[in-house]
Amino acid sequence: MTLPSSSQSVNIPLQELAQAIHATIHGSPDVLITGLSHLEGASCGDVSFVLKPSFQEAARQSQAAAFIVTHPIPDDPRPQLIVPNPLFAVTALAQKFFLPPLPPRGIHPTAVKGLDVRIGPDMSIGALVTIGDRAKIGSGVTIHAGVHIGDDTIIGDECILYPHVSLLTGCVIGNRVIVHSGTVIGSDGFGYVQHEGRHHKIPQLGRVVIEDDVELGANVTVDRATFGSTIIKRGTKIDNQVQIAHNVVIGEDCILVAQVGIAGSTVLGHHVMVGGQSGLVDHVKIGNQVKIAAGSGVTNDVKSGQVVGGRPAVEHGIWRRSQVIQYQLPELRKELRALQKHVQHLESLLHDRPSSKPRHGSESKP
Amino acid sequence: MTLPSSSQSVNIPLQELAQAIHATIHGSPDVLITGLSHLEGASCGDVSFVLKPSFQEAARQSQAAAFIVTHPIPDDPRPQLIVPNPLFAVTALAQKFFLPPLPPRGIHPTAVKGLDVRIGPDMSIGALVTIGDRAKIGSGVTIHAGVHIGDDTIIGDECILYPHVSLLTGCVIGNRVIVHSGTVIGSDGFGYVQHEGRHHKIPQLGRVVIEDDVELGANVTVDRATFGSTIIKRGTKIDNQVQIAHNVVIGEDCILVAQVGIAGSTVLGHHVMVGGQSGLVDHVKIGNQVKIAAGSGVTNDVKSGQVVGGRPAVEHGIWRRSQVIQYQLPELRKELRALQKHVQHLESLLHDRPSSKPRHGSESKP
Amino acid sequence: MTLPSSSQSVNIPLQELAQAIHATIHGSPDVLITGLSHLEGASCGDVSFVLKPSFQEAARQSQAAAFIVTHPIPDDPRPQLIVPNPLFAVTALAQKFFLPPLPPRGIHPTAVKGLDVRIGPDMSIGALVTIGDRAKIGSGVTIHAGVHIGDDTIIGDECILYPHVSLLTGCVIGNRVIVHSGTVIGSDGFGYVQHEGRHHKIPQLGRVVIEDDVELGANVTVDRATFGSTIIKRGTKIDNQVQIAHNVVIGEDCILVAQVGIAGSTVLGHHVMVGGQSGLVDHVKIGNQVKIAAGSGVTNDVKSGQVVGGRPAVEHGIWRRSQVIQYQLPELRKELRALQKHVQHLESLLHDRPSSKPRHGSESKP
Repeated sequence: MTLPSSSQSVNIPLQELAQAIHATIHGSPDVLITGLSHLEGASCGDVSFVLKPSFQEAARQSQAAAFIVTHPIPDDPRPQLIVPNPLFAVTALAQKFFLPPLPPRGIHPTAVKGLDVRIGPDMSIGALVTIGDRAKIGSGVTIHAGVHIGDDTIIGDECILYPHVSLLTGCVIGNRVIVHSGTVIGSDGFGYVQHEGRHHKIPQLGRVVIEDDVELGANVTVDRATFGSTIIKRGTKIDNQVQIAHNVVIGEDCILVAQVGIAGSTVLGHHVMVGGQSGLVDHVKIGNQVKIAAGSGVTNDVKSGQVVGGRPAVEHGIWRRSQVIQYQLPELRKELRALQKHVQHLESLLHDRPSSKPRHGSESKP
Repeated sequence: MTLPSSSQSVNIPLQELAQAIHATIHGSPDVLITGLSHLEGASCGDVSFVLKPSFQEAARQSQAAAFIVTHPIPDDPRPQLIVPNPLFAVTALAQKFFLPPLPPRGIHPTAVKGLDVRIGPDMSIGALVTIGDRAKIGSGVTIHAGVHIGDDTIIGDECILYPHVSLLTGCVIGNRVIVHSGTVIGSDGFGYVQHEGRHHKIPQLGRVVIEDDVELGANVTVDRATFGSTIIKRGTKIDNQVQIAHNVVIGEDCILVAQVGIAGSTVLGHHVMVGGQSGLVDHVKIGNQVKIAAGSGVTNDVKSGQVVGGRPAVEHGIWRRSQVIQYQLPELRKELRALQKHVQHLESLLHDRPSSKPRHGSESKP
Repeated sequence: MTLPSSSQSVNIPLQELAQAIHATIHGSPDVLITGLSHLEGASCGDVSFVLKPSFQEAARQSQAAAFIVTHPIPDDPRPQLIVPNPLFAVTALAQKFFLPPLPPRGIHPTAVKGLDVRIGPDMSIGALVTIGDRAKIGSGVTIHAGVHIGDDTIIGDECILYPHVSLLTGCVIGNRVIVHSGTVIGSDGFGYVQHEGRHHKIPQLGRVVIEDDVELGANVTVDRATFGSTIIKRGTKIDNQVQIAHNVVIGEDCILVAQVGIAGSTVLGHHVMVGGQSGLVDHVKIGNQVKIAAGSGVTNDVKSGQVVGGRPAVEHGIWRRSQVIQYQLPELRKELRALQKHVQHLESLLHDRPSSKPRHGSESKP
């Protein structure tokens, strides 16, 4: 069987790529580039990239036709594009030349629209999409097959919703938001009041607000607020299977790695990074530019700029040092036991002497 | 852009609300209430609520038109409804007056029904719902767009299934069950038998039974039993992204917080509370009214009434005390090292004396 | 209400079952078998099975009509089928006689196909399935309602895709692959480059390759590679809610239990077993036949054959011993404190004597 290639097939002079990323060219600008790939996977027409000087040897071994680099690879005759940040350049090139084309524009005839729906121009609404009453959708959106958009939901411009996203009633989504498959936005927050031994549902009357340039991975869940809004602010990126509870506020430009859980009403500042599988309890405040190590359990407020880890999460250095020692515990216990015996032995020596005072037993361990 | 308000817009005399929750009114009963909100978010027509005396100051600052309270706020001229449990009263009011109306009744023309399907009266079956052969569905159900209901599945009265729920073949759902988007009920249990180095699937022939008044969050998974039933009993509430393996039995009125995982054949009693991200291994028995702290790893049976925490989970007090000390380990090790030196020094003092007996080295640490 | 039974109703002479699993029959081969069940759940026409001698008492109590055993149950008149591995025999019988029949063959009229789609013979394509352009689908597949298959995706023979699976653009699926509901294959990997304080998306141009005989549970996520392929090799079985990041490679015949997360570019050998809720950081190499305990956090390479546990994961014995001691820490600290006092006491005794040398304080703890 033939496999689809790792990026769109194209045919572009290297010169054109160089211009797009404002690169200086070392070597011939006339090479025709047919793809973009990492060093190991590159075929003979591909442009590739060198992120660190230590990858230069891998570059020499690579079959790529040209490289994007910061420091030119010595003794390699192939053309090189010099830029300050090769990965950022790759990102720009991929966006412009190598991504698969957007799906065809228009509304698939099997999509189901409610009443009073407004959709901006240049949309692509896929097969079997369902759109609720009074939904307002901006221009240039791409809504893939099987997405559900609830009543009264508002979606900005140039958003991409992948298959089987559920965007429930009354949510508000900004511009250029990307939501991956299976993600649920606007499910009820988890709130009950106990009365006579039973749990009574607290109706969740709020909504979810997702600002511009947010990306949500696959099978993420974001609950609507009890009252008011659960908010994910501009530029924040959220990985797969993250859980955001009701009334949480996530600041701008945060990174939440896969399988993180954030409990109700917790507030994160901007540029917070949360490592995978971490959990944050409810009602804590996390400052700006905080880093939380993977697998942490945050149970208290964290001040801006702190780096924390562990369960419960503490300052990173304290956590690291205690992590190392946990596995030396059997040895430390052995040392303690040996020392106890040693002290007993010394004591017996002391008491065996004629001049020793009577033992003052109540202070010492037998 | 105009945003949807935090609850349904209404126009109800305060008197009417008071009657619905059997409240005593302090102040004028004639105020017209237009919404329900928490203290900070309340607009001038809203009724709000005071859960603790410490929130009275926030209430004074609030723009709410009236309050639901246990102890009247002193020196506030606004009317107050006095009840024993304000949150329970809010729940009742929200259910009765402030929830969005149920979707229109009837069966959407794009829904796909199998053979011999029976559906009770007063249903709302949304767009693109698929219902398998011989499914039996009670009265008053609300099945949102894109839900899948498998062959031979039975659903009780007044259930709500949100978009993209998958309810697979042969499952049994009670009355007033709520299932949020993306949740899967009846996927195969994870069972294989090893034979000649390969894993052979053990067919999962059982089903899932979900009793009355259960609520399942978004993107939950509940596997069908190998034989017999995986059971979630009456009144249990399960948060987003919880995993329930095959043959698990969850008792009545339990609370399982987000991202909990419960392995095969484990049995929980009633009123068990499991904190977020906890894991329970297979084949353990958890008694009634057990509390399991967030992030715990339960590897053994837990008796009724116990509070446990940690990985592995132990009695709460033991876990708490050792949690504190884990971060003092570097200091404790330092103290041990200092004490070792100290003892060596004492020993040298002892041996330097003319009268000392020969050292009995085999008992002591060098 | 009548409940569906725990397995398909059949009517087969025991003789026929015995032949299918090459069993020796003790007792009458003429019994008619109507179902298959575990010991506790068996009805009077069922065949059941005894996995260990300690279950023989339960077998005697069971209502089953016949048993599959390794060692015959003494003093039980019911017929028994003797095989070396009863569970493997049950698996074979269930597959052959007791599974529900496959859904009707053909393509449901509501399925939506793109251009140039090729589908092999003997398919079952359910209601509201969406299939993208140029998808190639093998023979004998069962694709349940609401599945989405992206453009250019390739699916082998005899695969089963359960409702609401999302199989995105350009993925490659082998033969006999089973994917449960809500699982997403081919979502974008989580990669950004920081530039001037913002996160810029690194386009994810690769794909996912899933080899023969893989099974993926419900609500699993498998991200496409940045370049090249995320790969899950032959025979690997993955439980619900597992997260596989971009460029991960999982070897043959692995077992990944529920809620495991594997970060980018990490590579697992063959026959690796990963316990539930474990996390593996990015770019580590796990050898063959490694076992990782539930709840572990793997932060380093693990050599073939090792058994590891803990956060961070270390050799199993070290982890076990330190796990036990963590809860003795308060007691150990108490002992250390007592010993410190004891030593101070001994020192004071020593210094009280006329012959003692001056104390050499700088070496010892005050």
